[in-house]
Amino acid sequence: MVTGIGDDCAVLRIPVGHELLVTTDFSIENVHFRRDCHPPELVGWRCLARGLSDIAAMGGEPRAAFLSLAVASDVQQQWVSGFLKGFLKLAKEFNVPLAGGDTAQSVAGIQADIIVLGSVPKGKAVLRSGAKPGDQIYVTGKLGAAAAILKNLQQSERGKSKRSRAKHVPVPIIRQLRPLPRLEIGRWLRERGMASAMIDLSDGLSTDLDHVCEESHVGAEIEAERIPRARLGSANFGSAKDGSAKNGSAKTSVALEFALHGGDDYELLFTSTDEVPSKVAGVQVTRIGRITKVLGMRLLSDGKAQRLKAGGWEHFTKQE
Amino acid sequence: MVTGIGDDCAVLRIPVGHELLVTTDFSIENVHFRRDCHPPELVGWRCLARGLSDIAAMGGEPRAAFLSLAVASDVQQQWVSGFLKGFLKLAKEFNVPLAGGDTAQSVAGIQADIIVLGSVPKGKAVLRSGAKPGDQIYVTGKLGAAAAILKNLQQSERGKSKRSRAKHVPVPIIRQLRPLPRLEIGRWLRERGMASAMIDLSDGLSTDLDHVCEESHVGAEIEAERIPRARLGSANFGSAKDGSAKNGSAKTSVALEFALHGGDDYELLFTSTDEVPSKVAGVQVTRIGRITKVLGMRLLSDGKAQRLKAGGWEHFTKQE
Repeated sequence: MVTGIGDDCAVLRIPVGHELLVTTDFSIENVHFRRDCHPPELVGWRCLARGLSDIAAMGGEPRAAFLSLAVASDVQQQWVSGFLKGFLKLAKEFNVPLAGGDTAQSVAGIQADIIVLGSVPKGKAVLRSGAKPGDQIYVTGKLGAAAAILKNLQQSERGKSKRSRAKHVPVPIIRQLRPLPRLEIGRWLRERGMASAMIDLSDGLSTDLDHVCEESHVGAEIEAERIPRARLGSANFGSAKDGSAKNGSAKTSVALEFALHGGDDYELLFTSTDEVPSKVAGVQVTRIGRITKVLGMRLLSDGKAQRLKAGGWEHFTKQE
Repeated sequence: MVTGIGDDCAVLRIPVGHELLVTTDFSIENVHFRRDCHPPELVGWRCLARGLSDIAAMGGEPRAAFLSLAVASDVQQQWVSGFLKGFLKLAKEFNVPLAGGDTAQSVAGIQADIIVLGSVPKGKAVLRSGAKPGDQIYVTGKLGAAAAILKNLQQSERGKSKRSRAKHVPVPIIRQLRPLPRLEIGRWLRERGMASAMIDLSDGLSTDLDHVCEESHVGAEIEAERIPRARLGSANFGSAKDGSAKNGSAKTSVALEFALHGGDDYELLFTSTDEVPSKVAGVQVTRIGRITKVLGMRLLSDGKAQRLKAGGWEHFTKQE
């Protein structure tokens, strides 16, 4: 399928009757990850996951990945090996060849640009623009873990000197940060023509739903109680006013704001006129609301409606 | 040809019976360019030129470009606009749509990753691996300008304080640094099946010829006097011992070492069993030597043969 690796270009064959899908994503040290707390395997894994998740959101099949990696001279070879190990582990999981890329010396820090090519039968790509009033809104999996963990890390570091900071994210939390791109569900929906619009949740539910509304020229209404929130142990990830923390239980649902505005979940959000099973390819699928003719987004909670705005995801900022 | 721009992925159609070509290239501030002396338009132009040149070296047609651009907060919007202006000017020249990419905030400096997709009829991509003993070696255009200009800039800066450095590369020199990727010649050769192997001269003649020799399991013999050297005015680009400087003339051929080892020329080197015209698509084509069964590279000069090694291109280093 891929030849010419190491030549001026890689040469790929795309199946007859397919269109090509292309996505690129930058992963930048101190913006998307931190060398002092994220293990390199996790950074490599997440770097590729971002691209695969975009292919999933089109209902596509990944065909090849390309990695452009710039690394400063103070970065140890061990870090780069770890990064590649995590990257290739995920690539193997989905049978995606690393078909090329570029390496360069960076002046400071680490910058990785991931390019994933995929394909989809002609005219069958699921776009953001197909949602119609009356369609139901669904999400896969559970939301908010990545944002809740990030916030927790930031809070636990506040007041600590740089030197005394925990060197790494604890192992049970790392598992939460190793998303499995929803390729199987995306394909399942596309094959059945069940998704009228689809997007991956990389910027956060409120922001990504807003993209679908804008592209489809529709509005949306979602029910706070229906949003599936991630459950985490070993730290205070809930919020007091939220009331979702179950006392005496080892795990706590993350606060609503993390599920609503937190990014980096890499789950899928899609709209459908059909009733979709509550489990597809072993993953939970939850109906959270519906598409409306009235523009804008509304959040229904305790029988009251409030206006919902794209909250979005804030990357690390320099002061940390 | 391209849809889905702004969606999770761009969706592209590749002509029936064609294979896909993919290339990625990082352009990094203070490694590949400097903000204080290279105008942003030139940086943007060269960024895309690197990718298009790789497509040319396969005999391909460019189909779409993707740009991932990370910019630090201290970089002015004017710089980014200038960069995009240069980038899009070259894209327009070859009718290549900018079909997507990613933007991010960088922690320091500017990092641009360019991805170019192209296509070529199935099985017709010209690889590096097809050179056979007895094939003639050809290059397009003239070589060494970029390396000679770089060296000259570095020398003229030595001893100057950072503050007093010339702010920009002089205009006549900029033209020399705005390469036109050899897409037309690459396609011309591929259509006629005239190139047995091809590569673009990005790392320098000696290094890139070495790649062809390695991939083709052959050796090469080139004649120093035949290598077409760029001619530059307004500075001392020759070398005294070289003897090529024409006194009293406004322009001087660059020293042999720049044509031989200097990078960033973005001309094509190819091998052929045929006699190739001395001009193709308005560009000079020069025979510089031949492929040999004996491995390794030899440089013939004044009737004597010496061993030639991959000299390569050194990027900016930090001390500058």
